[in-house]
Amino acid sequence: MIGRLNHVAIAVPDLGAAAAQYRQMLGAEVGGPHDLPDHGVTVVFVDLPNTRIELMSPLGTDSPIAAFLDKSPAGGIHHICYEVDDILAARNRLLAEGARVLGDGQPRTGAHGHPVLFLHPKDFNGCLIELEQPK
Amino acid sequence: MIGRLNHVAIAVPDLGAAAAQYRQMLGAEVGGPHDLPDHGVTVVFVDLPNTRIELMSPLGTDSPIAAFLDKSPAGGIHHICYEVDDILAARNRLLAEGARVLGDGQPRTGAHGHPVLFLHPKDFNGCLIELEQPK
Repeated sequence: MIGRLNHVAIAVPDLGAAAAQYRQMLGAEVGGPHDLPDHGVTVVFVDLPNTRIELMSPLGTDSPIAAFLDKSPAGGIHHICYEVDDILAARNRLLAEGARVLGDGQPRTGAHGHPVLFLHPKDFNGCLIELEQPK
Repeated sequence: MIGRLNHVAIAVPDLGAAAAQYRQMLGAEVGGPHDLPDHGVTVVFVDLPNTRIELMSPLGTDSPIAAFLDKSPAGGIHHICYEVDDILAARNRLLAEGARVLGDGQPRTGAHGHPVLFLHPKDFNGCLIELEQPK
């Protein structure tokens, strides 16, 4: 069911510093910042040959990653995103297997303009998993 | 400098259950368990089309992931591994930039039989980074 690893998301307290570090110290290809008001984050994508790293910092007063950074002020790996061909079929299969989908269970439009869902980390080894239907 | 994302490592309390979940619930291709006594872990690789997920559980009484699981008993994302062409050149560049390398700074043989190093998470947004020279 799951396909490619679409990205790994890292929550960071200082997006400019993190982007500069990936560009200069780690020598990676790093894009410009994008505000995603609907998601409460500003993101910078690091393009690797086979996948992307998504550096995220809070945007606005109600950011879903604010609590994460309160607990881990230095930042940390926030979630991983797996691609699925059919997000509704994937959701229904997971619900039938007893896994929990966050929110109201309806896909939202993610950072790349495609439908996404998040799975409950307590059902997946403490790991927050995003599912994205890339096309 | 950094190249492909070689793998994402997830520490899990029950390797058999996690492997079964990735195989059955997430429909991924999952290998058999491998004991890595030199690293104090037993691992299972989940093969995705573009990278791998490494599910890890403690092996022996002195596992480096025991403290992680004490703090996060349900498990969690433990580290990410970036490939580099020349691990000694990468290490020297990072040290010159002020980053810290864990241990004695000498590459060890990693889970795939290639030289690896770990970078201090406090220097990289709270994210434990492994560097691997794949060939």
